[in-house]
Amino acid sequence: MDIYDWRKKIDEMDEAIVRLISQRAEAAKAIGMLKRETLAPVYEPDREQAVFNHVRAVNPGPLADSEMQHIYERIIDVMRTLQKREP
Amino acid sequence: MDIYDWRKKIDEMDEAIVRLISQRAEAAKAIGMLKRETLAPVYEPDREQAVFNHVRAVNPGPLADSEMQHIYERIIDVMRTLQKREP
Repeated sequence: MDIYDWRKKIDEMDEAIVRLISQRAEAAKAIGMLKRETLAPVYEPDREQAVFNHVRAVNPGPLADSEMQHIYERIIDVMRTLQKREP
Repeated sequence: MDIYDWRKKIDEMDEAIVRLISQRAEAAKAIGMLKRETLAPVYEPDREQAVFNHVRAVNPGPLADSEMQHIYERIIDVMRTLQKREP
């Protein structure tokens, strides 16, 4: 496979990744509404740490666990902003 | 569904997201090797911009396009570091 072929594959993977991140965002939004109803805080450091531990545990490589967590820190950051937004 | 149910779903989604990001990283690694063979530069701003345009175009929401790009900036950053690493 040449670079062009790999990039075609990456574009397809990106479509699947965007779809999944969007589904994750819908779930985070639903949790945000439940938190609002119960007056629970949006920022829950223990849950965020549990997410990082989980993605590190299931990371098959080639990225280092720290690199996968680095990506997830950005994902969580964006999701937290979404949860704080009015519905 | 309560918060616990949503979090179980999110954990499953995270496993799928980690798997796809890892496959994307394998593809980026393969491209990195081809670039090394052809002495092509790792940093290609036009390709990175094309990736951002693509993920914005296929983003169904609820995240804003700028938020999806924000996540992808971190993904691309990590992939660039991977491509520079010796195989």
